[in-house]
Amino acid sequence: MSIPVLRSHVSGNWHTPTDEGRPLYDAVTGEEIARISSAGIDFGAALRYGRETGGPALRELTFHQRAALLKALGQHLREHREELYAVSARTGATLGDSKFDVDGGIGVLLAYASKAKRELPNDTVHVDGDVEPLGRGGTFLGQHLCVPLRGVAVQVNAFNFPVWGPLEKLAPAFLAGVPSLVKPASPTAFLTAKLVELIVDSGILPAGSLQFVAGSLGDTFDHLTGQDLVSFTGSASTAQTLRTHPAIVRNAVRFTAEADSLNLSALGPDATPGTAEFDLFVKGLVAEMTVKAGQKCTAIRRAFVPAAQVDAVVEAVTARLAKTVIGNPASEGVRMGALASLDQREEVRRSVKALADAGRIVFGDPEKVEVVDADADRGAFVSPILLVGDPRRAEPHEVEAFGPVSTILPYESTAQLIDYAARGQGSLAGSIVTADPAFAREVVLGTAAFHGRLLVLNEKDAKESTGHGSPLPQLVHGGPGRAGGGEEMGGIRGVLHHMQRTAVQADPDTLAAITGRWVAGAERRETERHPFRLHLEELKPGDTIVAGPRRVTQEDVEHFAEFTGDTFYAHMDAEAAAANPLFGERVAHGYLIVSLAAGLFVDPDPGPVLANFGVDNLRFLTPVTFDDELTVTLTCKQLTPRESAGYGEVRWDADVTRQDGQSVARYDVLTLVAKKEAGQ
Amino acid sequence: MSIPVLRSHVSGNWHTPTDEGRPLYDAVTGEEIARISSAGIDFGAALRYGRETGGPALRELTFHQRAALLKALGQHLREHREELYAVSARTGATLGDSKFDVDGGIGVLLAYASKAKRELPNDTVHVDGDVEPLGRGGTFLGQHLCVPLRGVAVQVNAFNFPVWGPLEKLAPAFLAGVPSLVKPASPTAFLTAKLVELIVDSGILPAGSLQFVAGSLGDTFDHLTGQDLVSFTGSASTAQTLRTHPAIVRNAVRFTAEADSLNLSALGPDATPGTAEFDLFVKGLVAEMTVKAGQKCTAIRRAFVPAAQVDAVVEAVTARLAKTVIGNPASEGVRMGALASLDQREEVRRSVKALADAGRIVFGDPEKVEVVDADADRGAFVSPILLVGDPRRAEPHEVEAFGPVSTILPYESTAQLIDYAARGQGSLAGSIVTADPAFAREVVLGTAAFHGRLLVLNEKDAKESTGHGSPLPQLVHGGPGRAGGGEEMGGIRGVLHHMQRTAVQADPDTLAAITGRWVAGAERRETERHPFRLHLEELKPGDTIVAGPRRVTQEDVEHFAEFTGDTFYAHMDAEAAAANPLFGERVAHGYLIVSLAAGLFVDPDPGPVLANFGVDNLRFLTPVTFDDELTVTLTCKQLTPRESAGYGEVRWDADVTRQDGQSVARYDVLTLVAKKEAGQ
Repeated sequence: MSIPVLRSHVSGNWHTPTDEGRPLYDAVTGEEIARISSAGIDFGAALRYGRETGGPALRELTFHQRAALLKALGQHLREHREELYAVSARTGATLGDSKFDVDGGIGVLLAYASKAKRELPNDTVHVDGDVEPLGRGGTFLGQHLCVPLRGVAVQVNAFNFPVWGPLEKLAPAFLAGVPSLVKPASPTAFLTAKLVELIVDSGILPAGSLQFVAGSLGDTFDHLTGQDLVSFTGSASTAQTLRTHPAIVRNAVRFTAEADSLNLSALGPDATPGTAEFDLFVKGLVAEMTVKAGQKCTAIRRAFVPAAQVDAVVEAVTARLAKTVIGNPASEGVRMGALASLDQREEVRRSVKALADAGRIVFGDPEKVEVVDADADRGAFVSPILLVGDPRRAEPHEVEAFGPVSTILPYESTAQLIDYAARGQGSLAGSIVTADPAFAREVVLGTAAFHGRLLVLNEKDAKESTGHGSPLPQLVHGGPGRAGGGEEMGGIRGVLHHMQRTAVQADPDTLAAITGRWVAGAERRETERHPFRLHLEELKPGDTIVAGPRRVTQEDVEHFAEFTGDTFYAHMDAEAAAANPLFGERVAHGYLIVSLAAGLFVDPDPGPVLANFGVDNLRFLTPVTFDDELTVTLTCKQLTPRESAGYGEVRWDADVTRQDGQSVARYDVLTLVAKKEAGQ
Repeated sequence: MSIPVLRSHVSGNWHTPTDEGRPLYDAVTGEEIARISSAGIDFGAALRYGRETGGPALRELTFHQRAALLKALGQHLREHREELYAVSARTGATLGDSKFDVDGGIGVLLAYASKAKRELPNDTVHVDGDVEPLGRGGTFLGQHLCVPLRGVAVQVNAFNFPVWGPLEKLAPAFLAGVPSLVKPASPTAFLTAKLVELIVDSGILPAGSLQFVAGSLGDTFDHLTGQDLVSFTGSASTAQTLRTHPAIVRNAVRFTAEADSLNLSALGPDATPGTAEFDLFVKGLVAEMTVKAGQKCTAIRRAFVPAAQVDAVVEAVTARLAKTVIGNPASEGVRMGALASLDQREEVRRSVKALADAGRIVFGDPEKVEVVDADADRGAFVSPILLVGDPRRAEPHEVEAFGPVSTILPYESTAQLIDYAARGQGSLAGSIVTADPAFAREVVLGTAAFHGRLLVLNEKDAKESTGHGSPLPQLVHGGPGRAGGGEEMGGIRGVLHHMQRTAVQADPDTLAAITGRWVAGAERRETERHPFRLHLEELKPGDTIVAGPRRVTQEDVEHFAEFTGDTFYAHMDAEAAAANPLFGERVAHGYLIVSLAAGLFVDPDPGPVLANFGVDNLRFLTPVTFDDELTVTLTCKQLTPRESAGYGEVRWDADVTRQDGQSVARYDVLTLVAKKEAGQ
């Protein structure tokens, strides 16, 4: 059988390299399994294709429509995950490792799809933050909008997560409306190639929204503009080289880096042997050392332990490591596979040597390992290595062995622990294993400035915890300083990273026209029919009903107090109310005001309005006293049709005013309104 | 009189340079007025002083306490603004220009102080976004926190705003809890020195929170760590040099740049001569050319005009420019002063030459200008220059003359205008002068990706508008690409830029201990006394009252319907309610549920709770049907004491449940609660 050559997918076509390419090897057997090269690709044309075909296609879709495609893609990949597991095994991954990578990546797509539907509008523009009044008269407003950048997100991935890596970068870019150009690290690019083949064959994504380069990016960076972005995951030194590329510097290209870091896990002083937390710490450390053979940017490199517990921890960790079966990941019982390449093993051995100079190895031999069903020399196998180090030395805080290697570091006090933590100069993830909330608080607040993520692990959350090493789509992934200074995911934050935030200043009517939402001060149109009689497609922002007045009498207030039981003195006791610094006399209940307002604006008969499912931002602005007359103005503010339901959400502005025109209460009323097409 | 030497203020002391320094000149008379040098400063020590003295002092204060200091500083500077105006005149500024700079800067301090009090907690940690449930059981939660970076914000300012520039960078850094090190551009550093003298002498800011370097930054950048930040305003080429400094690249130092850009103003097709908008466009263009002698990063360089209106615009703009009196800013009637330096004038002349090659000058002569009360050669005076250019050429989109220079560019269609706009490759600010909301929408959405700020100007907002060129503290300032890719101010966004966002994962109790806020799932403590009887200082997050049950009968619902007038069919009509896809039977009013809940949890007698001023995030989760029994659990969630009032805000979690424990409504109740010390 001839060795397959990985194809790229650029400018709408599969591209076969014009040269022979470089060999890629099976991490377990060492045999050549594919060749890789990007020779012959016109990278400038690929970027243009992304900008001119992918971008416009994505920008035509609303956030919810993009979310629906991501969801479909996630489901499609889930159906094909066995194919991905099979290829993944050749990267040295156990089935567990493969699931971490493959299912983790699919999980990101699905989580982003669902988050976008809940937290973004069914629209192409994201309105960011509140309206900012810029003048007292209300004729000049500010509003931040986020619109998709008009470029391409160039995504450079690391070798350790050939599926999760590309998907966690694709999801937020795609939702933002920005096309992706994916470049995997070569050693495991054959797995990303399989992933991309599944994606392209599915036909789910619009043309140009995902391109794939197997091999070098050539002169891609020379073609970057200020509208493109680069997201990089990999080594700090490569990050530095890319970050200073002239086109990136000249055009202020958004550049995000996630680099390896010296992540810590700290055992709390309360977590002595015999406690659940002691066991959690030991288990967590062993898992981080052995999952993906320790090839995770988030893996624990520095294990801080109260000085008195070092021996106990070494003993417990060593015992577990000794039971870890290493070898061919395809074989029964194997718990740890190979590193991704023989080069990687050399790198790990070098780093272990540097670490051992500042401490001692208490488990494992970097040159020797017993393996099952594999050749320990041809495969990139290495033994887990546990060290005990001196935290006053620089090496444990600076030298990263990107494999199954961790160093136990003793600490004497919380202040010392916090000081040592900072010496890592910025990490992706840290964990604190403790049942003591005060200790957790002190360490979290003391080390947060140096971390992108901090996990507090104890008996209470252990069962549901996703562990030290797992970035989650809901949470930011990235850390300051050594960790690259980037921020990926973090829910919608990661989407906005791909968008330009623009402050728009305008009069209310123009602002409403631009955003598609009614804003205070914009024109209100009293509709011929009651707006509750209009279906979702018929309603427009600005549609209004004015209802009232209704007089609020002392009897109303006393009756409401008696009926509900709310006999608060400000409503019932003239003398006490007079002493209240805010009221000075008896006032109506806030809940009475909103109840009466609903009575005024509601249209009682069955119609398109299905339910009032909530109220937002209710503020009582002026006290209502006896015999005040209330009028309510209800204005359609924002429509959010649901893509896959017969109704949508309608947000109304409710403004309850007194006889003198003063607002007494202001709030958003949230309703579900049926679509006409749904026949409701 | 000897020439004064500007002093720096570093490491807690005034520093006089150890050499003679370079001369600085009065922009109007050309006479030497000061010398500048940073010789002898230990920059590494200054950064350490900021980190070790300024940082800890700031981090001890809450956001509200920092805001109170900013406010006091703003008020102090306002009292001394005449002193600043006097020095400002020597930079070539008219009194109007000086107010723009000085009052603008003071306005930023006051606006930030007030925004922080409204939008940030009275705490040292900012809780960013919502709690993220990370497991179905509710035992594992995620929450993003923002904590101050532990470094120094190095702020490099441009010569054109010697007061506003430092203050707009100081305010968000200070609020974040990060000390500043301010470096002004040399030509106008004597004014910033005066500002810093006023600040230091006031004694308002904590030691180390503001340092000042007059002259070069020496080896400051070599000492930067991943916890420091750099905010730069100035030329694109300097931005590029700084951005690639090895320490910045190696440590992923946050680097923000605001560089000059080719900002546009577009006249809408509707705005023909005789319309208010036509006049607004002409006035705005002349103002942007002449205020600060056009030395604003945001000034209009590209004035897009429908081809048919070019002659009319040229005529109107020329007529106004001809009336602009240029000369000694101290003299009566002078409307435009000098450029900041003779070097600057040479630079402007060079750029005008390049622009004239791609068009023609229709007003002014770069080599000749008539001035009042000044020597046109010794002072840095230049005439306003208006050109008409060819928008198909590159120069109008790429060559910036940083002075009173603009180019009128004809366009034929909206699509063409949008295309031309993008050729600026990223701008700080743009304006669209139109009364047509559809045109405004098309141009805003078509050009937003290339802009940090877009103003729509017309008769409706003109009176309150702050104009094309004014960055505002509420809005982001900065633009993509050529404009530097930075983002400053933008309200609280600018504060968060100085903080590390960290995702914390923990069980609810630990998370509550870390954030100081109660979260769903954390321990609730039923207090001995009703929590409404506790003063602000006595209340703790987690304090709880459980009240109920109260049965909701058909009579209650019908009575409430009749009383309020809310006879919506879902409450009243069994048959219609049965047809509703969400209910299936008659249900109680949402407003009835919250009214009854208040009746259950309220403690009626006078006490520390002064008022319920609002409700947030109310969601009706499960329909309540007849004879359901409601219980409410009210839990103290967050306390926000006001620094300068006898009370504070208390946010309560209200959870209304049915007899089966199911939540039927969930919301935050907002109250004002008196402090004990206030004697309420």
